[in-house]
Amino acid sequence: MGVNLKQLAAELQLSTSTVSRALHDSHEISIETKKRVREMADKLGYQANPYASSLRKQKSKTIALVIPEIDNNFFTLAINGIEEIAQSKDYHVLIYLTHEDLQKEIAVSKHLQSGRVDGILMSVTSQTDDSTHLKELNKTNIPLVFFDRISDEINTVKITTDDYNSGYNATKHLIDAGCKHIAYLQVSEALSIGIKRLNGFKDAIKENSPGNKTSIVTCGNQNEDNYNLIQNLLNVPDAPDGIFASIEKLAVTAYYVCHDSNIGIPEQVKIISFSNLSTAPLLNPSLSTITQPAFEIGKKAAQVLFRLIEQKPLDDDERNIILKSQLIPRNSTK
Amino acid sequence: MGVNLKQLAAELQLSTSTVSRALHDSHEISIETKKRVREMADKLGYQANPYASSLRKQKSKTIALVIPEIDNNFFTLAINGIEEIAQSKDYHVLIYLTHEDLQKEIAVSKHLQSGRVDGILMSVTSQTDDSTHLKELNKTNIPLVFFDRISDEINTVKITTDDYNSGYNATKHLIDAGCKHIAYLQVSEALSIGIKRLNGFKDAIKENSPGNKTSIVTCGNQNEDNYNLIQNLLNVPDAPDGIFASIEKLAVTAYYVCHDSNIGIPEQVKIISFSNLSTAPLLNPSLSTITQPAFEIGKKAAQVLFRLIEQKPLDDDERNIILKSQLIPRNSTK
Repeated sequence: MGVNLKQLAAELQLSTSTVSRALHDSHEISIETKKRVREMADKLGYQANPYASSLRKQKSKTIALVIPEIDNNFFTLAINGIEEIAQSKDYHVLIYLTHEDLQKEIAVSKHLQSGRVDGILMSVTSQTDDSTHLKELNKTNIPLVFFDRISDEINTVKITTDDYNSGYNATKHLIDAGCKHIAYLQVSEALSIGIKRLNGFKDAIKENSPGNKTSIVTCGNQNEDNYNLIQNLLNVPDAPDGIFASIEKLAVTAYYVCHDSNIGIPEQVKIISFSNLSTAPLLNPSLSTITQPAFEIGKKAAQVLFRLIEQKPLDDDERNIILKSQLIPRNSTK
Repeated sequence: MGVNLKQLAAELQLSTSTVSRALHDSHEISIETKKRVREMADKLGYQANPYASSLRKQKSKTIALVIPEIDNNFFTLAINGIEEIAQSKDYHVLIYLTHEDLQKEIAVSKHLQSGRVDGILMSVTSQTDDSTHLKELNKTNIPLVFFDRISDEINTVKITTDDYNSGYNATKHLIDAGCKHIAYLQVSEALSIGIKRLNGFKDAIKENSPGNKTSIVTCGNQNEDNYNLIQNLLNVPDAPDGIFASIEKLAVTAYYVCHDSNIGIPEQVKIISFSNLSTAPLLNPSLSTITQPAFEIGKKAAQVLFRLIEQKPLDDDERNIILKSQLIPRNSTK
């Protein structure tokens, strides 16, 4: 009949908590220990408590998805990818919105520690400069996967896109189109992906056009404030002739400013943006984009999460997955 | 100290279930009975079991939101309205997506019957032509509020917009702009709001331009199929010179068809759509819309749901709330 967790732990001279985390493929346990535990579990015929396991299954069959905002096409597409996998596993997805609010993210993290879900997918807020709550959440042994907006301080599986390269290529695209003064628009200085995109921007300037003027504008979450910031940026004598929006909604706001102030795109200012906007090709003018494989990111994140939930081991190269974005030139940078 | 539910029911010579439903303002209980129960509850000083109530609070503090799709700006804005109210009540919102799939809606409804949430907000799928699962859900006494896409067969609180009038006005707007052959695009023949919009369309034609040709095109949930349907509609000799899209994504698809086939908007075909698209004014050409007060609908639906959760009675005119949409003419119908 094999042994239970307690017997297995005694045989290994480890705590049950350590053995459990090893079997759940936790990152807090070394690879050697995990190997030792797995070999001993196989040898002694360890079986997870079938009652506890079925009880747990009866209780949940749900995963949580924690995201900062919903009016962002990246997330709506990622959700569709996540749901495709969850549906195939007969799981429900509970979506929690944090509204770019660190306090809300902390509250949701605490709520999830009660163990009402079998796994968690998360993309952090633009305010998340402290990760204490994420560390606490990661300690609960509920499988946790970060996607897109990750926290570098948490040792768990992460799915991102090649943000540095994309930032570099978008900037080079504007330089090649003749821009002499490029403004980089961001929503936060703390966001991991924002920092990588900004580094790509800086290096592209340094390597391709070191004499160029640059502006870095940190916007917020209120469209009205962002509108005023961008209007002030564009309505001065030495205004930028290129805008690189690191977030879709900032490009939309920049379009509104240009339409309202009769600033010609691309004649007076060229615009490129990270975006999954379905109407990007229909805008006046059509918007050049760096398009992330949002659906694929969601799908991959969910696939890896279910591997963890089902206690199947991951390869080392599956702990940090990077998918490629695509630069699509359109009329806004012609 | 007052009486408990059992004592109150005995005094009224009703079952505890009837009294409980009366106190929860259930629609299955007549107004007279509810009045009788409330008066007796006040007279005897009835108090909800504080232990059960606190236990319940400890367990949940969450409401469920069940919606058919997420890549629709109506729903993303409504979600923000719902979250504003939920946050003020210190509640979490669990979002469930049904992906326009009746089977998924049935599965979610069953899942919610287990009572893991304190209340439910729902907008049904375009496939929901049978409401057995909704009736079962409504029997559980978990407060249930429908918004936008309601089920007429379920006796509960409903929040909608003036879909008939909006359908009428949008059609009249196209007639006034000179259209002689208007196509109405819908995603389903079963959807309550679609039927109202279509009736508005039909009456506007009958009353203002009875000789006009009309086409009614039922699209699906696959953008590619819809693209082919609309392309076939527009690439014939007697093609429509006006399109009324009853759903935002059909207008976006119609724009793609026109851009790809070099069909001039508004010269060859004028387009108006129900839409909360943030980029509607930025499209080429800017899109005329009927814009629903999506944020307000979400807010109102959540406000009413919390009234039910908190067992505060509703006035009769709060059982069927209708908010007004706005017609915003832009260049696509000039």
